[in-house]
Parts: sequence; C-alpha cells; structure tokens
Amino acid sequence: MKKLKRSGRLVDMTYYMLQHPHEVISLTYFAERYQSAKSSISEDLVIVKEIFEQEGYGTLLTIPGASGGVKFMPKVGKEEASQIVDEVIEQLAVADRILPGGYLYLMDLLGSPRFIRDVGRLFASVLAHKKIDAVMTVATKGIPLAYAVAEYLDVPVSIVRRDHRVTEGSMVSINYVSGSSKRIQTMTLARRSLAPGSRVFIVDDFMKAGGTIRGMMDLLEEFQAELVGIGVLVESEEVEERLVDEYMSITRLSDVNVKEKTIEVEAGNVLEKLVPIAEEELS
Amino acid sequence: MKKLKRSGRLVDMTYYMLQHPHEVISLTYFAERYQSAKSSISEDLVIVKEIFEQEGYGTLLTIPGASGGVKFMPKVGKEEASQIVDEVIEQLAVADRILPGGYLYLMDLLGSPRFIRDVGRLFASVLAHKKIDAVMTVATKGIPLAYAVAEYLDVPVSIVRRDHRVTEGSMVSINYVSGSSKRIQTMTLARRSLAPGSRVFIVDDFMKAGGTIRGMMDLLEEFQAELVGIGVLVESEEVEERLVDEYMSITRLSDVNVKEKTIEVEAGNVLEKLVPIAEEELS
Repeated sequence: MKKLKRSGRLVDMTYYMLQHPHEVISLTYFAERYQSAKSSISEDLVIVKEIFEQEGYGTLLTIPGASGGVKFMPKVGKEEASQIVDEVIEQLAVADRILPGGYLYLMDLLGSPRFIRDVGRLFASVLAHKKIDAVMTVATKGIPLAYAVAEYLDVPVSIVRRDHRVTEGSMVSINYVSGSSKRIQTMTLARRSLAPGSRVFIVDDFMKAGGTIRGMMDLLEEFQAELVGIGVLVESEEVEERLVDEYMSITRLSDVNVKEKTIEVEAGNVLEKLVPIAEEELS
Repeated sequence: MKKLKRSGRLVDMTYYMLQHPHEVISLTYFAERYQSAKSSISEDLVIVKEIFEQEGYGTLLTIPGASGGVKFMPKVGKEEASQIVDEVIEQLAVADRILPGGYLYLMDLLGSPRFIRDVGRLFASVLAHKKIDAVMTVATKGIPLAYAVAEYLDVPVSIVRRDHRVTEGSMVSINYVSGSSKRIQTMTLARRSLAPGSRVFIVDDFMKAGGTIRGMMDLLEEFQAELVGIGVLVESEEVEERLVDEYMSITRLSDVNVKEKTIEVEAGNVLEKLVPIAEEELS
C-alpha cells in the first residue's frame, strides 16, 4: 500500500475498522500499512473515535500494552436504538401480516438485509462487552438475524436444524417439547458446528412459549457450552408459562386478533439493556 | 448533526457509504448533513473515490442531473479476487471435510460471517452493473451466501424451502428432479416473498448436476420473474449432464476420493467474469 496522507488514512481506517469489528488492531499494523508515524496514527484514531461516538456508530476501545492496539466495538446510541425498535413496531403492526392460526408473516422483514442488520447491530451493541464465541439459531427464519449479530461480534454461527441432512456428518440430536403445541420434536446440530465449551448467544425471530429456545439451551449442554444471552425479534405476550426466563426482545405482541385482523405491538425489553456508547460512560 | 471538518466528514462519509451500497445519495444530502458547501463535499468524494479504487474496495459512480448524486458500488480488484478464490480452495482442500457419500462438510466455512462476506462481495462485484431486484436461494445452506450478496447489492432475499411451514401464508410449489439422485422433490416459495417481474440472482453453496438450481429457475417462471445470473460456492466436476448452462462458481472440485480421503479443488470461472473496479476502465 502506498503512503497515505491523513485524509486518505481516515477513509481507509474507517473502512478497515468496519470490516474488522471486535478485533484488536495494533498501532504498528496501521503505521506500516500507511507508512506513517505511530503518533500520526494515534491522532487519526482520535478523530475516528470522536466521529463514531458522536454519531452513535460505536466506539474504539484502546487496549494498552505490548499486544495492545485498538478495537472497534459497533454500538447503537439510545436515540437510534429507539428508532430501530419503533421501525420494527411500525412494520409489524400491519393487519395483512396475520396468517391463519394467528401466526405473523415476517419474511419481508427477515428478507431485508438492511432491516436485519439494524436489529443485529442493536443486539451486538448490548453484547459488546461480553465474551461470546458463537451465535446459535434454528433454521430457517432465525438465520439472517444470527448472521447479522455474528458479523458485528466477529464470531461464527451454529445453525440447529429440525430435519436431519446427510451432508453434515455426525450430529447431536435432542428431543424438545414445543411449548405452544406441546408436541415432542427433534432438533439436531452437527458435532463439528460448535466447539465444546463455547460461550453462546441464542437468537430467533419469534418466541411464543419458548420451547424451541429451551431446546437449544438443552443442546448447549450436550456441547458443554455456556449460554450468554438470548435475543428474539418478536415475543408473543399471551403465554401461560414461559419456558425461558432471561431474554431480550425487540418487540412484544400485546394483542393479535385473527378475527378482526388487528395487531398491537409494543417495544420489547431490549432498550432497558442497552449499554452506553463511550467507554468513559461505563461504570 | 453538528458541522464537521473535512477529517470528520471523510470518516462519516465512508461509514455512510458502506451502510448504503448501490443507493444514489445526493450531494445536497451530504451538504446538509455536514452543513458544508457542495464544492467541499465534491472534493471529499474525490478523496473517498480515490482510496476506494486504489485499495480495491469498489468505486463511487457519479450520477449527473437533478436527481443525481453519488453511488457506492462495492467491488473486488483482480488481485483480491484471486486471493479470495485461493482462500476458498485452501479451506476446501482438507481431507477431513469428506463425509460419507462423497459430500463435503461446509458449515465451518458457511458459518463464518467474514468468510461468507468476502465471497458475497466477489459475486456482488461481478453483478455491480446489472439491474437486480432480489437474490434467491434454497434453505438452509445457501442462506448465508444469499444475504452476503444481497447486502452488497442492497436488495432483498427470497428463501425457497424444501418443506412447507404454516407460517408463511400462501405458497407456490413446484416439483423438480434432483439431478444426482433422480428423485422427484418439491420446493416452495411464499407468494409474498418475491415481487412479480423481479430480476433475480440465484445463489447456492453447492451444485452437482444443478437440479436444485433448475428447480429455482422453474419457480422464477411461476412468479414471472427473470433470471439475471447464478452463483455457487462449489461446483462438482464429475457430472454427466449439467442441468444449468450459465453460472459462475468460486471453486470446482476436480477430484474427491472418498476411499483415499483426498480432495482436489481448483478455481471456478468467477475470475473470468470480474469487471474492472473503476468506471473509466469500463468499455
């Protein structure tokens, strides 16, 4: 790479940071990349950090010491977080989403990479200061959300399946009770798909009684893996007994009337769990 | 947003461009966003464009006229494209990927957001100058790749399923013949999941005889949709009669020996289809 002036460095640094979230990048790396003095790089980073924090994109965390450097942590500010939640509410509260049986059609939202990335960034923001090794979800509709979160956290995705495909090698299967229908079902995860001992964030599009998520939690035990958190895009409200205690939700359905074709949606609890953008604000 | 100096604008503009690929952004928008003169914004954009092209991130296309502005088109340079293909080859050519039946375990690669994004960016680079309305894939393993491409192209994803879930409303189903096993199977797509007349890029992780992709092409007809291109991560070589003619592949398996547990992988044809990064280079 040829020697760059400050203006060029700022463009390239911003690009590079966004491609490498949650990765410690040494000052030496940047100094060599741009053939510039470390002192200039430090000044560049102050500018990038200031804009990122001011605009609510996240923060740069400075890691001191010989193996130190700088780490971009994508985050969402309070105001933008509220906007994201409001946007999901507005999108959900459309009568023609209601399908027979009181289900909601969600694929238009889940099918939009930009929409999904905002939600993923919001979850990643809450999780920014936790050690996470993998994001787990169940096929099919949880997958887009899982990748969006995983990308911002820079960790791999483990996809649990309800069928059993031959192309994944040895599998671990468990039975679980679907909370709402009370039927016994099977879910499987490829043995190679999750390292033993991993710290895992579970994500799904929709949670009713939580049976599917409970199943994934049981599956974690089979891998001696540890649950770090649970996130869902939509939780339904009218549930007698939820099988999952601790989770964050973007939205909550307060009323779905299949006959009248009306939906009432409110904010979930994710906003209560948001952490401040700048490290200085952390207690 | 408060008034920004050039250094701040460059950081913010780079961030903004990366969040809004393939979207026309007016100079007026940036001028108001930064409370700066359009002439300054133009100078900023020259700097961003120069770095993006020089480093092989893509280009900024200038759209003249009243509704004009600037559009970031993510692309991959020749050198990086070769590196991405080589990386896939290296990752694939590992003996312990071979599963019974000659299938390959791919979930470690497909489960890595960073890996998948590189491949998605490579496909999006080839497609940069084509009009595309949606990316289509089949659940489950094609999904990560589909989102990676769709994100860079800023279009939605349509997920075809081999099962029939109740939660997606009215579905369109077709029968197709799996090319390698010759069995008749069914695939379905939610009626709402693809707008009639859409121009569609089809993507999948693996193509043997191409029966699944052929099925998706038949499905497109049911939606009066148009095929713009096909991309696969891996194509197998030993196929008597391929059901699909025109496609791009990142890699090609030249030999999988289940008994000896060896895999030979070579580059696919994607590099031949790459377009130059800068618009000036286009004929």
